Amino acid sequence: MKIDVLSLFPEMFEGVLGNSILKKAAEKEAVTYRVTNFRDFADNKHHRVDDYPYGGGAGMVLKPEPIFDAVDALRSEAEDKPRVILLCPQGERYTQKKAEELSKEEHLIFICGHYEGYDERIREHVVTDEISIGDYILTGGELGAMILIDSIVRLLPGVLGNEDSPILDSYSSGLLEHPHYTRPADFRGMKVPDTLLSGNHKHIDEWRSKESLRRTWLRRPDLLETYPLNDQEIKWLEEIKKE
Amino acid sequence: MKIDVLSLFPEMFEGVLGNSILKKAAEKEAVTYRVTNFRDFADNKHHRVDDYPYGGGAGMVLKPEPIFDAVDALRSEAEDKPRVILLCPQGERYTQKKAEELSKEEHLIFICGHYEGYDERIREHVVTDEISIGDYILTGGELGAMILIDSIVRLLPGVLGNEDSPILDSYSSGLLEHPHYTRPADFRGMKVPDTLLSGNHKHIDEWRSKESLRRTWLRRPDLLETYPLNDQEIKWLEEIKKE
Repeated sequence: MKIDVLSLFPEMFEGVLGNSILKKAAEKEAVTYRVTNFRDFADNKHHRVDDYPYGGGAGMVLKPEPIFDAVDALRSEAEDKPRVILLCPQGERYTQKKAEELSKEEHLIFICGHYEGYDERIREHVVTDEISIGDYILTGGELGAMILIDSIVRLLPGVLGNEDSPILDSYSSGLLEHPHYTRPADFRGMKVPDTLLSGNHKHIDEWRSKESLRRTWLRRPDLLETYPLNDQEIKWLEEIKKE
Repeated sequence: MKIDVLSLFPEMFEGVLGNSILKKAAEKEAVTYRVTNFRDFADNKHHRVDDYPYGGGAGMVLKPEPIFDAVDALRSEAEDKPRVILLCPQGERYTQKKAEELSKEEHLIFICGHYEGYDERIREHVVTDEISIGDYILTGGELGAMILIDSIVRLLPGVLGNEDSPILDSYSSGLLEHPHYTRPADFRGMKVPDTLLSGNHKHIDEWRSKESLRRTWLRRPDLLETYPLNDQEIKWLEEIKKE
């Protein structure tokens, strides 16, 4: 996969792309990253990338030319049909399903604005996907792009070795994870539940399933609306509600 | 505000904390950042921070000691009562309201796991807030911590100057932003709507309000469920549904 990022702050990406799994993925040649400062594509002499909004009002708006020209350059060089992703609060809410969809592409281009709004023509004519990572306000699209890159690259074939087998993934079952414990069994008087130390795997599996259900019911009851409960789970849920 | 981060990959934070608004905020002394590798607090000779889960299964679990000891050290030095925030998929969904709440604290400590699960005793006895930034799987808590830091620090008094007046903020009105346009009025044949060029501010305001409503209805109808529509907006919404 090829990943291009258009940003006014390319240095923001170095630490994130240069460490841990994202770094390993590039070393394994599962992905290449390129971060381009689209200010280089501003054709005016002051390299301005934004301007006042038509119709007045506070704030600035990203001009269309630098983005159109930068994307044109990345596209013609690539001779492929990249997905062009705009990070913005008005976008589709990002989910694991979208990460899986995007992980099947050959080339992704991320456009990161900073403070500014985007000229609407960028949305209409350049962008294929507008994505929001959540209902909170950030100073720019850079962190959103990093979130997408991290969630997508870890899904690419060969990137996660067995040793990285992500314990958190089982929450993609549709329920939240049950509690985890590791050594010591007694830490400052705080103890690991007896069941987990019992060696009885039937009891351990039951404990985990029930605690997973409990946590989901307590914290994210919305997930239970679409989760297909089996008979045992229905019974546990009754018990949990009484406890 | 003091911000502490516990992470196994401190270098991931350099680019993000060292640029743009987050850098300026530190220069203005509105905030101090400190990123600590909690591996330094692992008291075993191999500096192991994780271990196998009790009860078996794939993946690793973060041990309690390094986290307890690191947080104890940050706390005793500080002589304050920091909020201790765990980034995890099982946490409360992060929102702008939570960013506003946390921006009023004096000291925040973020705990970032990486691949691993967390020993449950960390959640129960150290952490004050468990937060999830969205329903997608990441390789660690670092990007989540950066998201929170960015959204919180920009709210601190004096951090955003007038020049940064964030155009995107108006979406905190409860509706999505209307489209924005800037120069040129005609770019490769793509034109700015006449209303915005008219100079008639009443018409411009109406156009913007209606387009904001349209975008919200098309993309995030859930936001309309709690938004108090006025008479004019109810009328526009009828028109939009017919268009």
